[in-house]
Amino acid sequence: MPAKPQNPNPFIALTGAVQKVAEPRLRRIFAGRVKAAAKYGDEVAALVKSVRELVLRGGKRLRPALVAAGLRAADGRAPIERAIDLGLSLEMLHTYLLIHDDWMDGDSVRRGGPTVHRLLARRLGSEEQGAWAAVLAGDYTLGVALELFRQASQGARQSELLGAFTRMHEDAIFGQQLDITASSPDPELVYALKTGSYTVNGPLAMGALLGNGKPRLLSALERFSVPAGVAFQLRDDLLGAFGDPSVTGKPLGNDLVAGKQTLLVKSGLRRARGAARKRLTAVLGQKRATPADVGRALDVLEETGARHEVEGRITELCANARRALKSKVIGDGGRELLSGALTALAERPL
Amino acid sequence: MPAKPQNPNPFIALTGAVQKVAEPRLRRIFAGRVKAAAKYGDEVAALVKSVRELVLRGGKRLRPALVAAGLRAADGRAPIERAIDLGLSLEMLHTYLLIHDDWMDGDSVRRGGPTVHRLLARRLGSEEQGAWAAVLAGDYTLGVALELFRQASQGARQSELLGAFTRMHEDAIFGQQLDITASSPDPELVYALKTGSYTVNGPLAMGALLGNGKPRLLSALERFSVPAGVAFQLRDDLLGAFGDPSVTGKPLGNDLVAGKQTLLVKSGLRRARGAARKRLTAVLGQKRATPADVGRALDVLEETGARHEVEGRITELCANARRALKSKVIGDGGRELLSGALTALAERPL
Repeated sequence: MPAKPQNPNPFIALTGAVQKVAEPRLRRIFAGRVKAAAKYGDEVAALVKSVRELVLRGGKRLRPALVAAGLRAADGRAPIERAIDLGLSLEMLHTYLLIHDDWMDGDSVRRGGPTVHRLLARRLGSEEQGAWAAVLAGDYTLGVALELFRQASQGARQSELLGAFTRMHEDAIFGQQLDITASSPDPELVYALKTGSYTVNGPLAMGALLGNGKPRLLSALERFSVPAGVAFQLRDDLLGAFGDPSVTGKPLGNDLVAGKQTLLVKSGLRRARGAARKRLTAVLGQKRATPADVGRALDVLEETGARHEVEGRITELCANARRALKSKVIGDGGRELLSGALTALAERPL
Repeated sequence: MPAKPQNPNPFIALTGAVQKVAEPRLRRIFAGRVKAAAKYGDEVAALVKSVRELVLRGGKRLRPALVAAGLRAADGRAPIERAIDLGLSLEMLHTYLLIHDDWMDGDSVRRGGPTVHRLLARRLGSEEQGAWAAVLAGDYTLGVALELFRQASQGARQSELLGAFTRMHEDAIFGQQLDITASSPDPELVYALKTGSYTVNGPLAMGALLGNGKPRLLSALERFSVPAGVAFQLRDDLLGAFGDPSVTGKPLGNDLVAGKQTLLVKSGLRRARGAARKRLTAVLGQKRATPADVGRALDVLEETGARHEVEGRITELCANARRALKSKVIGDGGRELLSGALTALAERPL
C-alpha cells in the first residue's frame, strides 16, 4: 500500500471537489444552450457548439476553485456547491476573453485543440466569417457568464458582486489593449490587469462577498491576490517556455514566436549580447521559426539568467502574498487553503 | 405667431426631455472614463476616446426614451430622471453592438463620421490593430453598459432587470450571427432578434420593471413591442434606401452595396426580371458601385413594387402593435406615449 502524501495541498483537494460538481454542470448548461440555439438554425447552433467544444475540452477550473476558497475564507462551513455557478460564470468570462485573444493573437491551438476562430472558419468555410463568428462567440460567452452570474448572485449581495464583475471585465480589456497595441508596456501591469484581476483577485473577492465577508477580509484578500496573480502569470510564462506542451496545451515557446513581451523575453533582451542576442531575436514574433530555432532561443533565456530573474521575482511576489495571509481576519482554514492556492498557482513545478 | 401644431406627439416631447438630461450625463460619464483610462497610457485612452467620439456624435437616444415610456406606462407619475441611467446602459449596449457590427460589415461611416475600427486603425497606424482594438472597444462599451446598469438597478428589481439585459444581449448576437453567416435567413426573424429585442422590447420591459409593473402589463408591452420593433427596422431599411443621407448619417443604398438581405432587397429580387433584375444585382454586395448604379437599382425597387410591399408590411405590423395597446392594463397616459412611439419608430416620413 503506497504511503499517503504528507501535508496534501488542501486547495488541490478543493479543486478536485469543485471539478466533480462543475464538469457535469457545464455539460448540462451547454446541452440546454445548444438545444435553444438550434431553434435558430445551423449557423447559430454552430456558434454555441464551438464554445461548448472549447469549454468541455478542459481547463483546470481554477476560478471556480478560487471562488470556493474565497467563500470558505469568509465562512468556513459553507458548502462549496454555493460557489459553483458563480465560479462557472468567471470560467465563462475567462473563455470569452480567450476566444477574442486567440483570434487577435492568431493562435490556432488552445487546450490541445483548434481555437474557436479556427473551428468556425472551418465550419463556415471562410476565414473572414470565422473571425466575425468568433467575435460573436466570445460575446455570446460573456452573455452566458452574465446569466450564470445572475442566477448565482440572486439573494446575495448582487450589486456588489456585479461591481466586482464589471471591474474584472474592464481590467482584462485594458490589459489586453496594452498587450496588443502598446510598444513596451510594463509586463507586471499587463499581468495584473489581464490575468490577475479575473483569475485571482476577482474570484476570491466574489467568493468572500458570497460568504458575506467583512470589508477587512476583502482588503486582506486583495493584498494577497495582487502579488499572487502576477506570480501566477510569471509562472505560466515559464511553463509556456520550458514546460511540457502536453500539460500546457500550447506549443513550446508559443509566446516567443507570437512576439509577446513577457518579463522573461524582456529580461533576455536586456541581458543577451552578440550571437546570443541574435539567436533570441531570430524567433521573436516569427511564427515560422523552427523548433530547433526556438530551442536555441530558449537556451539563451537560460544561459543569460533571464529565467533565473523571473524565478526570483516569483519568489519575491509569493513572499509578499504569504505575508498578507498572516492577517488575523483570515481564519486558519482559509489561510491553509489560500497558501495551498499560492503553491498551486505560482509554485507549480515545470 | 405660428400656430401650435395640433396633437403633438407626446413621445417626441418625452424624447426631447430625455435628451436634455442624457446628453450632459453622457459627457460627464465619458469625461471621467477618459481620465481613468489615461492612467494606463495613450493606447488605453485612445480606446475610450474612440467610444466617446461615437457616443457623443449623436443618436436619437431612442432606447432611453423608451425606458422612460415603459416606466411611465407602469407608473404615470414617475420622474423621467429615474429612467436615464438604465436607458443609457441600453444606449451603451447599442453602441457596443454597432462597433462590432460596423467592423464585420466593413462600414467606414457611422453617424456622419468614421466608424470606431476606422478611427482606431488611423490612431494606431495599422488596419489589423484597428480591428483588434475595435473589438476591445466594443467589449469595453458593454462593460460601461453593465456598470451603468448596475448603478441604475440598485434597489430595484435588479435580478429581473439583469435577466432582461442578458436576453437582449443574446438575441442581438444570434440575430447578427444569422445576418452575417446564414445563406438566406428570414429577415423578420433577424430584425426581431437583432434590432427589436434591444431597441423596443427590452427598453419598454426594463422601464416597466423599474416602475414595478405587473406581469400582465409586461405581457401587453411585449405584444406591442415585437411588431413595433420589426416595423422600426423595416422603416429603417426604407430610410437607408430612399431617405436623406444627411438624416440617416449613412450613404444612400448602403445596405444594397453591403449585400444585406433586407426584406426590401429580397422582395426586389423576387419581383424583378430581365434588365431590371440585372440593374439590381449589379450593385448588391458591390462596395464600388457608383451612385448612378445605386440610383438605378433603387428605381428597380420602386418600379417592381418592392418598396410598396415593405410599406404594406409596416402598416400591417403597426396595426398589430396598436391592437396590443388597447389592453386595459395600459393606462391612458401610457397608451398615448406608446402610440406616439410607434409613430416615431415606424411611421417616420422618408
